[in-house]
Amino acid sequence: MVQGSSISGFPEWLPSERAVEQQVIDTLREVFELNGFIGIETRAVEQGSSLLKKGETSKEIYLLSRLQEVGHESDTPVEERIGLHFDLTVPLSRYVVEHTGDLTFPFKRWQMQKVWRGERPQEGRFREFVQADIDVVGNGELPSHYEVELPLVMVEALERLRKFGLPKATVHANNRKLSEGFYRGIGLSDIEGVLREIDKLDKIGAEEVSKLLVKECGATASQADACLELAELTAETGDELKSRFDELCDKHNISRSDDNESYVLASQGVETLAMIVDEAARIRPGAVVADLKIARGLDYYTGSVYETFLDNAESLGSICSGGRYDNLVSQGKKKYPGVGLSIGMSRLLSYMLHTAGATVSRVSPAAVLVAVWNEEDRPACNAIAKTLRDRGIAADVAPSAAKLGKQIKYADKLGIPYVWFPADSTESESSHDEVKNIITGEQETADATSWQPDTVYARQTVSCAK
Amino acid sequence: MVQGSSISGFPEWLPSERAVEQQVIDTLREVFELNGFIGIETRAVEQGSSLLKKGETSKEIYLLSRLQEVGHESDTPVEERIGLHFDLTVPLSRYVVEHTGDLTFPFKRWQMQKVWRGERPQEGRFREFVQADIDVVGNGELPSHYEVELPLVMVEALERLRKFGLPKATVHANNRKLSEGFYRGIGLSDIEGVLREIDKLDKIGAEEVSKLLVKECGATASQADACLELAELTAETGDELKSRFDELCDKHNISRSDDNESYVLASQGVETLAMIVDEAARIRPGAVVADLKIARGLDYYTGSVYETFLDNAESLGSICSGGRYDNLVSQGKKKYPGVGLSIGMSRLLSYMLHTAGATVSRVSPAAVLVAVWNEEDRPACNAIAKTLRDRGIAADVAPSAAKLGKQIKYADKLGIPYVWFPADSTESESSHDEVKNIITGEQETADATSWQPDTVYARQTVSCAK
Repeated sequence: MVQGSSISGFPEWLPSERAVEQQVIDTLREVFELNGFIGIETRAVEQGSSLLKKGETSKEIYLLSRLQEVGHESDTPVEERIGLHFDLTVPLSRYVVEHTGDLTFPFKRWQMQKVWRGERPQEGRFREFVQADIDVVGNGELPSHYEVELPLVMVEALERLRKFGLPKATVHANNRKLSEGFYRGIGLSDIEGVLREIDKLDKIGAEEVSKLLVKECGATASQADACLELAELTAETGDELKSRFDELCDKHNISRSDDNESYVLASQGVETLAMIVDEAARIRPGAVVADLKIARGLDYYTGSVYETFLDNAESLGSICSGGRYDNLVSQGKKKYPGVGLSIGMSRLLSYMLHTAGATVSRVSPAAVLVAVWNEEDRPACNAIAKTLRDRGIAADVAPSAAKLGKQIKYADKLGIPYVWFPADSTESESSHDEVKNIITGEQETADATSWQPDTVYARQTVSCAK
Repeated sequence: MVQGSSISGFPEWLPSERAVEQQVIDTLREVFELNGFIGIETRAVEQGSSLLKKGETSKEIYLLSRLQEVGHESDTPVEERIGLHFDLTVPLSRYVVEHTGDLTFPFKRWQMQKVWRGERPQEGRFREFVQADIDVVGNGELPSHYEVELPLVMVEALERLRKFGLPKATVHANNRKLSEGFYRGIGLSDIEGVLREIDKLDKIGAEEVSKLLVKECGATASQADACLELAELTAETGDELKSRFDELCDKHNISRSDDNESYVLASQGVETLAMIVDEAARIRPGAVVADLKIARGLDYYTGSVYETFLDNAESLGSICSGGRYDNLVSQGKKKYPGVGLSIGMSRLLSYMLHTAGATVSRVSPAAVLVAVWNEEDRPACNAIAKTLRDRGIAADVAPSAAKLGKQIKYADKLGIPYVWFPADSTESESSHDEVKNIITGEQETADATSWQPDTVYARQTVSCAK
């Protein structure tokens, strides 16, 4: 990342880093499209009223004002102003309602865009970053099989990024109904509050969370203990999940009868979560585990919730999160339940570049630099480059007829592997074009209408140095 | 474009329209990279001081404020606030200065991003739109051959878009030195003022411009006439340009001697412009013409200026504009002269979609929808889809085991050409998978490990209906 970037929180990449980002974007898009997701792009702004409605980040909004409005900005209520979107889920829900008639449901969409959060500058967090989202939104109903399929699409995408240095990713899944049923079962009623405190486990530890559950959510010490025990429960199979959950219910005197609404609610969550881990295990063993500490701060999730962690990079936190939301989008009586996950691209890229050591094979997309002996020859050099380009080979032409060493240095700095030497027009007719691979030193006579670069040098590629 | 979009000036595309935009973006990127341009992306915001410095759009800036700052926004001077960029040239110049040490010069870069202009809402113009830019920036110096090459790269890119319904594009070039030399030669000194009025020719006509030249720029009636005569000059070859320009000098008593600084300045411009039209004619006849009414509103251009018009779509105005700027970027005594052009993508796309009738062959990227007979069979259906995807064939699976007609309707609505019928697991072993092309009606037995879609149905393609 650019050092000395003058606006903190707004990262910017050097060309070689941007080339890695571009390949990451291309890779994600390929996986999303192979899975039938439709790409959309929403405008960068939403109405203040819509930005303020939902989610943990409602306090971190950038509002816009036209230069002409300076001094009068506050005359307009925040709800009527426009601001930059802070995620891609709120815009999606607005887009779905606005264009219901033009969409086919279930609507599977991918979207990669910048989002902005007006965080306090001193926190050193990104205020502008790229999110890569997939969601499926149903019209009225949404089958639960999507709650397995979507995290698996993300795992597939992340798996493809392992060649860029990304460690193995594991999705940790939980279910809001499971948590809520259990909390109610032990006599707690401030469900949102408990989830909010449990969400802090990784940051502040069990002891502090326990204190907060007592202080903020009206829990007794033993209720707090039960919440923490639930959060410790993990499972890799549905059966394991069910039996361990039932054990915990018995321990904390939650009746497992059909009359107990709390247990019935929890059971729905257990069933869905069990299906998710079992189905995922069949397709990609170890990719998805049940982890009952996953809480997610956002209040609009109603079913499955997901966070994704990288092996040996837990300090990075979750790099891909999401869940099922049944009530985020509605229009009159009509509901549009959805499930989706979002990759925090910029943080992921930062890890790949600076921890994993992902590098691009060359800065320039050009495979060939055509050398220029004299400025008078430039038209001939341009013609050679055009012939190559018409055949799909990216080519640049030397900026000036400088000494050959300087031209080769220009190619070298940009990582362009081949330098093309046009036949010397002042020599006899027997003079031929030649092309040199400046990495291997090999040089051969060549014809622009038929020459091919070695496969390994044909395109910019990203690899991992470490 | 979405009707009833609730924030005017912020266009948003339906999925089928976005698919066309995505292919336009892919096409432009391919051409830029074939020509050795390096992709970068800059942050969306710049310092107010930097946004206010240059250009015609300085009055059309969106400033940002954090929600917490509401009521106190105006405490901070505009120069110290941050705002959204209104073009990609100002960000490029800042990027070049900030990262000089990490760049190789001449720095050839492409960039496609959204830009924002805080226009008055009632004007019905885009306030958010995508620009596609290429620029070459030199360190200290920049050879003039780039002034031919860059417009030709843009012509090549626009030529590729003709299959999406875009008419033939012609670049109209002029040169600021030519104009300035001529204006000074006839005794005018408010060069910027004259250019600003001449820039209005297409909008308000010669008579009104003439009045403004007299009223605003201190021109006499005959000086105004001379300016208008210059603006009428067009040429398709360098020789034609030179002889017609010299005629005009003689007519208006501009001495063509080496002692006349004005004529010397104008001659530099004439030489460059002549080179541009001649070189361009050699490579792509008719692609670039000299057109001396091209003025460009922006004051940072110092040499060549370009505007691009589409045949029979002149009312659209220039769809790709730019020029050479020698003084936009500097650091101490060091200068970074550049030349670049910018395509106004959103307007172009609007034309392609709504006037030329560009349409995508299907909304979904999927080539195949795997039908689901029973929900119990879904794992087998997922396995078929995975086999296809692993072979690069985009595949979706039916949302539910609804009646077959409903599943086919889902494929039809999304334009998915093939529906895959898995072998019936309840039947004898002789049952085979079958695949039906629902457009042609053809159906055949198929094996997911080897089946290939017909080439014409393999991918989303864009074509032009009209």
